[in-house]
Amino acid sequence: MPMIEEQLKVLKTTFDKYAGKDGDKGSLSKAELADLLREEFPGMAGDKKELDAFFTGLDGDKDGKVSFPEFVQFAATLLLIMGGM
Amino acid sequence: MPMIEEQLKVLKTTFDKYAGKDGDKGSLSKAELADLLREEFPGMAGDKKELDAFFTGLDGDKDGKVSFPEFVQFAATLLLIMGGM
Repeated sequence: MPMIEEQLKVLKTTFDKYAGKDGDKGSLSKAELADLLREEFPGMAGDKKELDAFFTGLDGDKDGKVSFPEFVQFAATLLLIMGGM
Repeated sequence: MPMIEEQLKVLKTTFDKYAGKDGDKGSLSKAELADLLREEFPGMAGDKKELDAFFTGLDGDKDGKVSFPEFVQFAATLLLIMGGM
């Protein structure tokens, strides 16, 4: 399997761990995003107002759910900005 | 390090392998995208017309370069559509 596909599947497995907690298993609700941020980006988890702003930013197509492509684009942008890579 | 950050860094290393071939080391030119598609998505690499269409789709902000966030969003969408995950 090509490396990029394999690496994305690993990332999808982590995404699914949070996305699978309630409702639609393929996307993040706001509560699931809160869990993900708290566990994966401890420095970023703020109050409800910040969570709302994050969720709005992530939900590119405004359907109230965050898909895997929406999530990886956001996480990649975040890490580039934070200078993590 | 949180898992998502670690996994994105692995993906970034693969991206950088192609992005680093010419000019701007942080983004893919059209020639670099052609290399990446040929090696990582053998089934997708088509003729010049298809490459042009891909590049236009990937270059969300129309700056003639494909950034890491633009790339991961596109690759994630592609893999979801292809049913790879």
